[in-house]
Amino acid sequence: MEITRHNFKQVIDQVSEAVDEASFLCIDGEFTGLNNGPALHGFDTPQERYDKLRKGSLDFLFVQFGLCAFKYETEESRFVARPFNFYIFPRPLNRNAPDCRFLCQASSLHFLASQGMDFNKVFRDGIPYLSPVDEQQMRDTLDQKHATQQLHSPPFTSGTSQTSDSSRSIQVPAEHKDFIQQTLTRIQSFIDSEEESLQLEPCNAYLRKLIYSTVKNKFSSSVYLETKVGEQNQHYFIEVSKANEEVLKKRGEEKRQQELDELDDAVGMSKIIRMICQSGKLVIGHNMLLDVLHLVHKFSYPLPQEIDEFKSLVNCLFPRLLDTKLMASMHPFKELVSNTTLGDLEATLGKEPFKVPVIVFPEDFPGYETAQEHQAGYDAYITGRCFTIMANYLGKFKSQSKPALPGSALLEPFVNKLYLMRVQDIPYVNLTGQDLKPNRDHVFHVTFPKEWKSNDLYQLFRPFGPIYIAWIDDVSAFVALNKKDQSDLAYKMLCEGVSYRVRRYGDHKDPNTSHGRKRPLSLPETFAPWNGEGKRLKVTSSDVGRSVILYNILKMIMFLKRQNQ
Amino acid sequence: MEITRHNFKQVIDQVSEAVDEASFLCIDGEFTGLNNGPALHGFDTPQERYDKLRKGSLDFLFVQFGLCAFKYETEESRFVARPFNFYIFPRPLNRNAPDCRFLCQASSLHFLASQGMDFNKVFRDGIPYLSPVDEQQMRDTLDQKHATQQLHSPPFTSGTSQTSDSSRSIQVPAEHKDFIQQTLTRIQSFIDSEEESLQLEPCNAYLRKLIYSTVKNKFSSSVYLETKVGEQNQHYFIEVSKANEEVLKKRGEEKRQQELDELDDAVGMSKIIRMICQSGKLVIGHNMLLDVLHLVHKFSYPLPQEIDEFKSLVNCLFPRLLDTKLMASMHPFKELVSNTTLGDLEATLGKEPFKVPVIVFPEDFPGYETAQEHQAGYDAYITGRCFTIMANYLGKFKSQSKPALPGSALLEPFVNKLYLMRVQDIPYVNLTGQDLKPNRDHVFHVTFPKEWKSNDLYQLFRPFGPIYIAWIDDVSAFVALNKKDQSDLAYKMLCEGVSYRVRRYGDHKDPNTSHGRKRPLSLPETFAPWNGEGKRLKVTSSDVGRSVILYNILKMIMFLKRQNQ
Repeated sequence: MEITRHNFKQVIDQVSEAVDEASFLCIDGEFTGLNNGPALHGFDTPQERYDKLRKGSLDFLFVQFGLCAFKYETEESRFVARPFNFYIFPRPLNRNAPDCRFLCQASSLHFLASQGMDFNKVFRDGIPYLSPVDEQQMRDTLDQKHATQQLHSPPFTSGTSQTSDSSRSIQVPAEHKDFIQQTLTRIQSFIDSEEESLQLEPCNAYLRKLIYSTVKNKFSSSVYLETKVGEQNQHYFIEVSKANEEVLKKRGEEKRQQELDELDDAVGMSKIIRMICQSGKLVIGHNMLLDVLHLVHKFSYPLPQEIDEFKSLVNCLFPRLLDTKLMASMHPFKELVSNTTLGDLEATLGKEPFKVPVIVFPEDFPGYETAQEHQAGYDAYITGRCFTIMANYLGKFKSQSKPALPGSALLEPFVNKLYLMRVQDIPYVNLTGQDLKPNRDHVFHVTFPKEWKSNDLYQLFRPFGPIYIAWIDDVSAFVALNKKDQSDLAYKMLCEGVSYRVRRYGDHKDPNTSHGRKRPLSLPETFAPWNGEGKRLKVTSSDVGRSVILYNILKMIMFLKRQNQ
Repeated sequence: MEITRHNFKQVIDQVSEAVDEASFLCIDGEFTGLNNGPALHGFDTPQERYDKLRKGSLDFLFVQFGLCAFKYETEESRFVARPFNFYIFPRPLNRNAPDCRFLCQASSLHFLASQGMDFNKVFRDGIPYLSPVDEQQMRDTLDQKHATQQLHSPPFTSGTSQTSDSSRSIQVPAEHKDFIQQTLTRIQSFIDSEEESLQLEPCNAYLRKLIYSTVKNKFSSSVYLETKVGEQNQHYFIEVSKANEEVLKKRGEEKRQQELDELDDAVGMSKIIRMICQSGKLVIGHNMLLDVLHLVHKFSYPLPQEIDEFKSLVNCLFPRLLDTKLMASMHPFKELVSNTTLGDLEATLGKEPFKVPVIVFPEDFPGYETAQEHQAGYDAYITGRCFTIMANYLGKFKSQSKPALPGSALLEPFVNKLYLMRVQDIPYVNLTGQDLKPNRDHVFHVTFPKEWKSNDLYQLFRPFGPIYIAWIDDVSAFVALNKKDQSDLAYKMLCEGVSYRVRRYGDHKDPNTSHGRKRPLSLPETFAPWNGEGKRLKVTSSDVGRSVILYNILKMIMFLKRQNQ
């Protein structure tokens, strides 16, 4: 189902119901770019990779979010899938709201547009969003404004922050005296007439301010002024209508409610993400590290510097995650799957020895009849499809009659580990424990002249057998020896090079300058709104506020821990 | 006429012809955003405004360029208009080409998309471009590569920078020995067969490198390898075809030519801009300062720091510019035009006392039958339409029988002055002379607590009559007195405030820290490829190279001047 800001309100209950009923949720994100920093390479540690993504990837926009809720029906032994495809765009709420600037990567936009992504729909009809912090700030501002208005006379005007200013009077400069006098005369005739409303000529903000101020002085509460936008958003003009104290009060209340409703609309997409968080259900993605980073950063909290704090935050927001790319790279699938890109994986899992379980879309629910790769909703659906096949296989593997579903011990080895792309010896980020620390004694950090190409490195290391090169930039790379027993010899022979410099990986990673890995923080159990089994506890709508508090407590604990170290 | 990368080559001659025949050219640009820095305000000096735009506006993308060539036909007393609407997008030329990152402003994208801008077309079908500097760099790299290839054996492979590496051999690691052996066997059978070509299985870059290297060793010049991209750009695979020395040589030459052609395609949109520069014709825009900045920066040279250097550069590239927004704000139009936004101006100029001259589109040339505001081609056309009406009026005003056309002295007051938006007392940037230095003795720089609103400033200055406020940020603003004779009194009364600080404009602008305005540099006449009348001199295709040299000479002169100061 396609969701834009136009049908968002109508379908949010459907989404909520689908999430509530789901056995697990699949997600996917599409972005305006992937990386704007140093290149990712094969010997990034989890902290280094996290830093690169945090600094280089989050200025891109999250333009499409796919959510596919899968429900397992035991009696029919089948899955029911409800895919939703959300278009997202941070259109400014009003003239005073922040106007977001974001980054794009030419190759990403070209690729997505070629794959059929409708960017016109994104920019025109995308659903807005506010993070909890932004929302709280805007709510506070609004509360303050309303409190001020209550103290003073009933609001005389509608509209923006002008209100507080315009209730006091401004001197009219000589060159505008005629204009203002004419306007006052027109309004007087209007009051004396049978007309219900009067539209003044479009004029600039300064003149509107003069009008508000002088009309208030002269006519007090007998008229109500409202600034309106002309056709095609090109002009602002004032509409005058007749009023009295009571009408003004009522208008004021309506206006306040309207502002609160607008703010509620602006929270938009964040509501869906909170819904997912609050469900506490297993959330599945394919190569989902970047998606999770964006989801946390854009819809929840700014990402912390340390990956351990990030892990705690993710545990708090998404207590159970599963990455199908990692799952397909692990036993028993590793042996059967040669290529784990989503499209290839789906193809492989469609053949023997795998069996595709029955997956249906509900009646009257728009599903997918043809492939729509790189559309977030479709990719979320395919991710789920891959998961069900692997879950089916796991069940059969253990002679069970049904797929391994969330809660099953068979899935535990795959939970809360996110695939770490292109890293040679650390396959995943472990969200609930220490990351792997592989031996890298056979890896060297090499710096060399800018003119060097791969072949120069092959030549340099030729005496020590085949090598793997992970480029860092134009003048440095990590080089790993295939024959690990050659490491000491290679170092001895090469460490005193003239035009190049070879250092052992461990010496290059100065423990004083690199991020020390701390033990991930586990939340005291009483804080966690979800229990260890990933089953849903009773959660209320105040849980978002609660998770704000949780996160703040978390920050405090981390701070105190650092103080004590 | 809509122009994308698909029809660019077919229509470039038509564009060239239209430019050649034109009496004047109208332009317009659409961008992914407007400003990402400090706000523009009413007392910016030209240098300050230039700095703000240079630092805050150029990271946005130029996505649409409108060019409308107008030709005056004396006999028919009519204009013939040829509007072109170019979609622009810096899609990377190939895997090794730079992948542009650019900025977007949410409100701008939402506005343009709502007005019908087709961003899918931009991202998918936009015409690429290279600045002269980038072009030269890529041409040098290509020349170098080709020179190296000439020295060595005829190219054995096609494709990217792999070539130089893969001509030397790499050791095959144990785990890939089987794979490589199988591949070599397959190729041997292929050579012995009647088949014309053989597609190997898709594999990753490292394995392809191994294949290139081992095949070269074993089969020398009897086969030719080419890396190809699979359907949907998802896989790379190698295609093997039979060859001999001669075939390889021919393939190599074809490949070189193909690379040169690709580079030529990548220059794309820059060719159009160079065409306009080389024409030396009057170029007309509406509120065109930002367009000119983008055109120079993206398609010619990075903008210099000093506005005077910028002016010299613009004089060199676009010797005659005219801004219709400024023209409409000057005598004799100022008295007749109340609103100078393009749409309003067109409406005003459509009524008495103005007369619309006959403007036609050539037969079979796609013109405009309905309004398409904010489409660059349409806006360029409307800009020209406004100009012809004003030129007509000027001609009639001076009892001429025809409109004031480029070259006419009647237009001189309007030439080479660019409208300076929202600045109170400096209406334009003067491209061929000193900028105005208005008296600002009645202007004060005020700093105050963050809580202050406009009204607090009105209250503060109330004793001295009406004021105009130009906000700088949350805690400072320029305040101008309407009653200039109150300036000294106001300063005396307010200069010792406690919660706020009032300084005279002149004191605030410390001459030691602000940019000193230097006399604009005029190019020695022998350097200028255009004569003073704006008529076209004979220009050749080497003129772009020449303008690079010109600009470098210019930089040198500026440098020497500064040394002597």
